[in-house]
Amino acid sequence: MLAAPLGELVDLLIALDTRADEPLHRQLYRGVREAIRSGRLRPGVRIPSTRRLAQHLGVSRWTVLAAFDQLVAEGYVVGAVGSGSRVAFELPDPMPDPVELPPATTDVPARQARLSGRGRLLQGIRHRPGVPYPKPFWTGIPPVDEFPVRLWARLAARRYRRLGQTELYHGPAAGYQPLREAIVAHLRAARGVRASAGQVVVVASAQEAMELAARLLLDPGDTAWIEDPSWPGARGALTGAGARIVPVPVDSDGLSVERGIALAPEGRLAYVCPSHQYPAGVTLGAERRQALLAWADSHDAWILEDDYDSEYLHAKRPLTALQGLDQAGRVLYIGTFNKTLFPALRLAYLVLPENLVEPFLAVRGIGGQHAPTIDQAVLTDFLAEGHFANHMRRMRTLCRARRDLLIAAAAREVPDLLEIARTDGGLHAIGWLPPGMDDRQASVAAERAGVRAAALSAYYLGTCPRPGLVLGYAGFGRHQIESAMRRLGGALRSVAPR
Amino acid sequence: MLAAPLGELVDLLIALDTRADEPLHRQLYRGVREAIRSGRLRPGVRIPSTRRLAQHLGVSRWTVLAAFDQLVAEGYVVGAVGSGSRVAFELPDPMPDPVELPPATTDVPARQARLSGRGRLLQGIRHRPGVPYPKPFWTGIPPVDEFPVRLWARLAARRYRRLGQTELYHGPAAGYQPLREAIVAHLRAARGVRASAGQVVVVASAQEAMELAARLLLDPGDTAWIEDPSWPGARGALTGAGARIVPVPVDSDGLSVERGIALAPEGRLAYVCPSHQYPAGVTLGAERRQALLAWADSHDAWILEDDYDSEYLHAKRPLTALQGLDQAGRVLYIGTFNKTLFPALRLAYLVLPENLVEPFLAVRGIGGQHAPTIDQAVLTDFLAEGHFANHMRRMRTLCRARRDLLIAAAAREVPDLLEIARTDGGLHAIGWLPPGMDDRQASVAAERAGVRAAALSAYYLGTCPRPGLVLGYAGFGRHQIESAMRRLGGALRSVAPR
Repeated sequence: MLAAPLGELVDLLIALDTRADEPLHRQLYRGVREAIRSGRLRPGVRIPSTRRLAQHLGVSRWTVLAAFDQLVAEGYVVGAVGSGSRVAFELPDPMPDPVELPPATTDVPARQARLSGRGRLLQGIRHRPGVPYPKPFWTGIPPVDEFPVRLWARLAARRYRRLGQTELYHGPAAGYQPLREAIVAHLRAARGVRASAGQVVVVASAQEAMELAARLLLDPGDTAWIEDPSWPGARGALTGAGARIVPVPVDSDGLSVERGIALAPEGRLAYVCPSHQYPAGVTLGAERRQALLAWADSHDAWILEDDYDSEYLHAKRPLTALQGLDQAGRVLYIGTFNKTLFPALRLAYLVLPENLVEPFLAVRGIGGQHAPTIDQAVLTDFLAEGHFANHMRRMRTLCRARRDLLIAAAAREVPDLLEIARTDGGLHAIGWLPPGMDDRQASVAAERAGVRAAALSAYYLGTCPRPGLVLGYAGFGRHQIESAMRRLGGALRSVAPR
Repeated sequence: MLAAPLGELVDLLIALDTRADEPLHRQLYRGVREAIRSGRLRPGVRIPSTRRLAQHLGVSRWTVLAAFDQLVAEGYVVGAVGSGSRVAFELPDPMPDPVELPPATTDVPARQARLSGRGRLLQGIRHRPGVPYPKPFWTGIPPVDEFPVRLWARLAARRYRRLGQTELYHGPAAGYQPLREAIVAHLRAARGVRASAGQVVVVASAQEAMELAARLLLDPGDTAWIEDPSWPGARGALTGAGARIVPVPVDSDGLSVERGIALAPEGRLAYVCPSHQYPAGVTLGAERRQALLAWADSHDAWILEDDYDSEYLHAKRPLTALQGLDQAGRVLYIGTFNKTLFPALRLAYLVLPENLVEPFLAVRGIGGQHAPTIDQAVLTDFLAEGHFANHMRRMRTLCRARRDLLIAAAAREVPDLLEIARTDGGLHAIGWLPPGMDDRQASVAAERAGVRAAALSAYYLGTCPRPGLVLGYAGFGRHQIESAMRRLGGALRSVAPR
């Protein structure tokens, strides 16, 4: 593999203008991108370390990281930022990243706001985890159309009628105690999680759980493993904490722990979805679970277990959570009610190792402090009175039916171009495209046809082995699924190679 | 003033043991504290910079900062950490800091959790902003006993009855649009804030607003002004972002902008409570307001305006918010409903300069993402239907009566030892102690008598000019105020010099 001499690379870049309105990282990103697109930087050429680049350019490392993070996200550069990354062999089309927000409003200000390095860095990787009025096939949307609104309203009304002063004062930082107890009782039975209520901390979302954990546990520059592909929000949380992100490949048996140890044995934290990997949909194998726990224990590292949709898995007994196998107190387990009940609820939780509870609350104490008490109380009743278990039973059946609708619609409308992968359940499925087809181009064409179909390759930091679309089906009824699939079929045919 | 030669200081420290269970910053803190208490480090001696100390000790700067932050918090060292701090002339008694949480539970683990530097740092300064069942005279507690619970429950029931799918999906990251509009309409009339609804972002608490802003705007090592004395939570938010905190003195005219500019013209951000300084209770003068805005504009710095209790001020027209005077888009205005309605609500907001809205949402997007929609909708109705304005009118009258009760009770029970300062309103007052009396000792004695009376000196990073107690009165009825004052009187007499 060719290595780009530092001077040559730097010379290729446009001169950075520190007085321009455009932030430096954006200028750098554009400069490198143009150098790649024009062929001045050839495919496969190695990128020098961010430290050396920052030195030569006379800018902060944050600036370089932000620029290259964006280049990696868009597929111009592959490999982990800052360690052996190189110019991609297959260049992406110059199109908007589907995980990015649309550009700012019309009120764009004349004066560029001066942000912190991490603030600037996050501008490049921000994502939109969900939207009001989602259209098919947005991912991560539960079957809100089937949520028992009246039952929930009845429970809320009962709580409001009995509201006392206790529910109006500050609540405990870790959460409403009866809710913490209801959560561990449920997790013990459903997920094999072994913990006391004292280890539960209630937060607003799985995303917030990751973000707080990353800040508590990672110093800037610390290495964090991330599954590749992965949920962009996890990358955001780790990036915000200043972590050096090492993408570790996922295969049919889940995260390759062996590869992780080979790539970055010094990792301080590993972010994993063992039950149902997002977006690949695979399950982490039993041997790898043991290997991951052993690595964490011997390296004093932490495991962030995101169990975001395990409640939707069809298997009679999904594999026990990693947390339940952990003897050494290395696992932080994350679950959320925003995906099982409704996204606007904003209640999720962590189950922490005992020695992290107090430290965690210190970080929470300088932020949002605690979740709204009344909402927590209503949720407690929903759990404790058996409604949650009933609801999830119904939802598993419903989601299986919707998945089957998706498979049937794809087979009918686009049998030649889209093959829906069978999964054990969850909220989304991958639709494989023919090898060689560009999934980002397909995603843009779908968007034009009014259908959300995220490109699988957009979730990769490294190389995506096969083009595909990530299709959320759980939140949409028969008519929506069938009509959207017709439009998606048309879109795919419009971009398919002849 | 004597300066401690670096070598001498380092030699005085106990040898740090990197393999001990006790964290390094804690070992360093204990070593320096013992050196001070034993007289080996003399009063007035200058402390070398954290950078030099870190180098000589072979530890990270975080470790040194964490240790000295704690020493400053406890009064062993005075002045800003890292810039001209010195051993205090008057040493504190070795007692627990009243703003600190009680030590961890009985489940204290055998193995010390390995945290990030900022995680460790926050362990030392964590605070408890409020408690369930607060006793007199906890500060920051609104008159929850007089909150119109039934009205609120009625509005909630109406919302729950009409709940549609829209309110169940993800809401906009910036908050529920009708609530953003109701907030700007209220602020325009009540506080002279000039903004569009598009500049409002709804968050969980004023504390969260500070924390998100600090991370967005400050790089580790950046200088931030903080009022001295100040709310410990603000210090926590800035510390968590890695800021170098420069305490700027507050006098009867509020923050001394002149001193701030002399101490740290390069400040990137200034945290201020212009309407009603916490805890001093003073108002920032008109000339200083202009000077502060001019400094921020010319130095490209940000002003974090915390308007936490202005709704409770008695004056017919409290001074317009700083935000309303800002022509250059430098002010981030923070307000909260947790102090005007009830703490368990968890709804607060920022009004941002236009060019910060999108960048702010990127930071919010990797965290809690958005506030619960239904709660926001109920609050919207409370505001839009005029209940909020009615409620605040009632609360201002009620709090004035409670302040008068506090003054009368103090005059009756402890006329010789406690003089309640007259303020323009708010939720708390300062009770001055006789010069020379130790307010931390008084606070501990009060705690033993079952009364919360925070030591004024505990809110200072520099020297507290006069001992006092910070007494929250708004949340407590006549009986509670009078009975607590009797017990406080006994406690003060038990520690008063004869």
